[in-house]
Amino acid sequence: MKALRYHGRADVRVEDLPTPDPADGEILVRIATTGICGSDIHEYRGGPLAIPLDTPHPLTGDRAPVTMGHEFSGTIVALGSGATGLRVGQRVAASAVLRCGTCPSCTAGHPQLCRTLGFHGISGGGGAFAEFDAFPAYLANPLPDEISDEAGALLEPLATGIHAVGRSGLTPGQSALVVGAGPIGLMVVVAALAAGADQIIVSEPSPVRAKAAARFGATAVLDPKADDVVARVRELTGGHGVDAAFDTAAAPTSFDTALAAVRPRGHVVNVAVWENPTPLQPNALLFSEATITGSLAYTPAEFTRAVEIAAGGAHDLESMVTRSIALADVVTHGFERLAADPGADIKVLVRP
Amino acid sequence: MKALRYHGRADVRVEDLPTPDPADGEILVRIATTGICGSDIHEYRGGPLAIPLDTPHPLTGDRAPVTMGHEFSGTIVALGSGATGLRVGQRVAASAVLRCGTCPSCTAGHPQLCRTLGFHGISGGGGAFAEFDAFPAYLANPLPDEISDEAGALLEPLATGIHAVGRSGLTPGQSALVVGAGPIGLMVVVAALAAGADQIIVSEPSPVRAKAAARFGATAVLDPKADDVVARVRELTGGHGVDAAFDTAAAPTSFDTALAAVRPRGHVVNVAVWENPTPLQPNALLFSEATITGSLAYTPAEFTRAVEIAAGGAHDLESMVTRSIALADVVTHGFERLAADPGADIKVLVRP
Ligand SMILES: [Zn+2]
Ligand SMILES: [Zn+2]
Ligand SMILES: [Zn+2]
Ligand SMILES: [Zn+2]
Repeated sequence: MKALRYHGRADVRVEDLPTPDPADGEILVRIATTGICGSDIHEYRGGPLAIPLDTPHPLTGDRAPVTMGHEFSGTIVALGSGATGLRVGQRVAASAVLRCGTCPSCTAGHPQLCRTLGFHGISGGGGAFAEFDAFPAYLANPLPDEISDEAGALLEPLATGIHAVGRSGLTPGQSALVVGAGPIGLMVVVAALAAGADQIIVSEPSPVRAKAAARFGATAVLDPKADDVVARVRELTGGHGVDAAFDTAAAPTSFDTALAAVRPRGHVVNVAVWENPTPLQPNALLFSEATITGSLAYTPAEFTRAVEIAAGGAHDLESMVTRSIALADVVTHGFERLAADPGADIKVLVRP
Repeated sequence: MKALRYHGRADVRVEDLPTPDPADGEILVRIATTGICGSDIHEYRGGPLAIPLDTPHPLTGDRAPVTMGHEFSGTIVALGSGATGLRVGQRVAASAVLRCGTCPSCTAGHPQLCRTLGFHGISGGGGAFAEFDAFPAYLANPLPDEISDEAGALLEPLATGIHAVGRSGLTPGQSALVVGAGPIGLMVVVAALAAGADQIIVSEPSPVRAKAAARFGATAVLDPKADDVVARVRELTGGHGVDAAFDTAAAPTSFDTALAAVRPRGHVVNVAVWENPTPLQPNALLFSEATITGSLAYTPAEFTRAVEIAAGGAHDLESMVTRSIALADVVTHGFERLAADPGADIKVLVRP
């Protein structure tokens, strides 16, 4: 079968691989469609970051070249021994969070903080930019008929948005600022609405993304190139600031904006992978008693919640897809183009 | 009367002032003794930071020169009209947190986050490096006989430690790292013990302060010049990290140590005023989902709790006092010496 493999920075190749066999506890899935994630582009442009290059990953035993792709939907075509609770023919989407199952974080229900954390489609052990993909059965989430293949491939980033909103402690009736309206920013908007936020302000310079933010329920969309975002947020919140701010852009200006825009004791959540450190003046936290935290991936329960929200049908998730390309074109039309101009698209899907 | 007044950076003077009259809602207190705070030295060496220099403070109407001193005990000698619930002859200590009383933070019971926040003894309106001090009655906390004048002057920093522990979410049986064992670090140790912490690890290079940390109940005291603090904390916590880490030292190394030493989802609390920004790699928060927050001053309820803990007598708070000096000597033996060699003392008290 054809599969996209990561060999090193700026070196990803579509190659011929044998169709995998599902190992003990695994399922084999025929891929319907797979999204290109911002973290895939990070690995391509600035990596390897989470991809194991020299030392095999402790959970998968693999190192580069590894197959990429972790936001997908597909149909089960075979079950390995010990893969219970699922059946051949079922449509599924999958969590990417590999877990050891025994460390304190895993036993506390937070596999995303596993001591030997790995991601399916990043850390080896298979990946979904391929015709078939074999992975642990515990990652699979059956899809109801209401969820299309395209929406199914968007559940992984939606779960990420749900987790970020959970990390912020946002409660019904509260207000949020979302800095950046790429796929993760938009999913934070969807999740904040689902959590009962009254006011969702988005800051985004790209017109295509700003338009999508309004469509997904942002109550105000600001342009950081034209607006004084912090001043506008204060205006829109009676001078007080938002309850929660989400930085999905990973830039010093977005981080500072998020921190300056929260109310006293407000919460700033970093949902992005950073390439460099950013200067923090801790006095800003002192005089506002704001908190800064990070949000990584999601828990199994949050992936289930993503399925529920998508099945509810309140959001046209598929409208986030700006292009759908063939696996044969994923290097040129996918990775190269997104690395060069990330703001021109929202979500690009790949069909094997 | 004699009083110490702040004129500008490196310019504090003992001057003759008229004994103040208590205004409406104020009390007049004869000062027993007053501690020199780290923030006083910050103002002296690097200020004005919180002291109003050009624009009068909105709550006090004052600007420099202002009388300093906010950690003290004394005896009420007169009540202004409308100062109810107190009587002449009562011994008191006082909160320093001036409040507007009407902003969202004040009405939520968090005057330390008041929109026009000021501090008695910093923002004008009186100060306790003086023979007499007049201030709003709502700041006063009556002292039971079990609390000495010296311990009474230590309640303000103890309340600060209690607030910091509250900000960390520390619960009984948990573990803490306290970086720096100056007065605030030691008060965090006292407050963490009172909150039921099982394990309190302190990192402190100064021998006099390290010894005090052990005396106040630290279960391990590390020397950051000799020990790999993060590695030792992991050893002492079964490889997991502490539940909460307190940075009282305001240095890039102390901040990084605190952040690296917490468990997944642990809490880092900044309790110090910083002079410069520090580099933060937000990925550190992403992969640990740790939180960073700040802790400023205390609430009225936390000052009451400080009185209770001191009255309980479990801690020899007075042993924190390394020198007691006369008001006439406060510039040379107090401010100049502490600015030059802050680690040689723990707490210096001033007697008028
Ligand atoms: Zn992703
Ligand atoms: Zn684990
Ligand atoms: Zn102080
Ligand atoms: Zn106020």
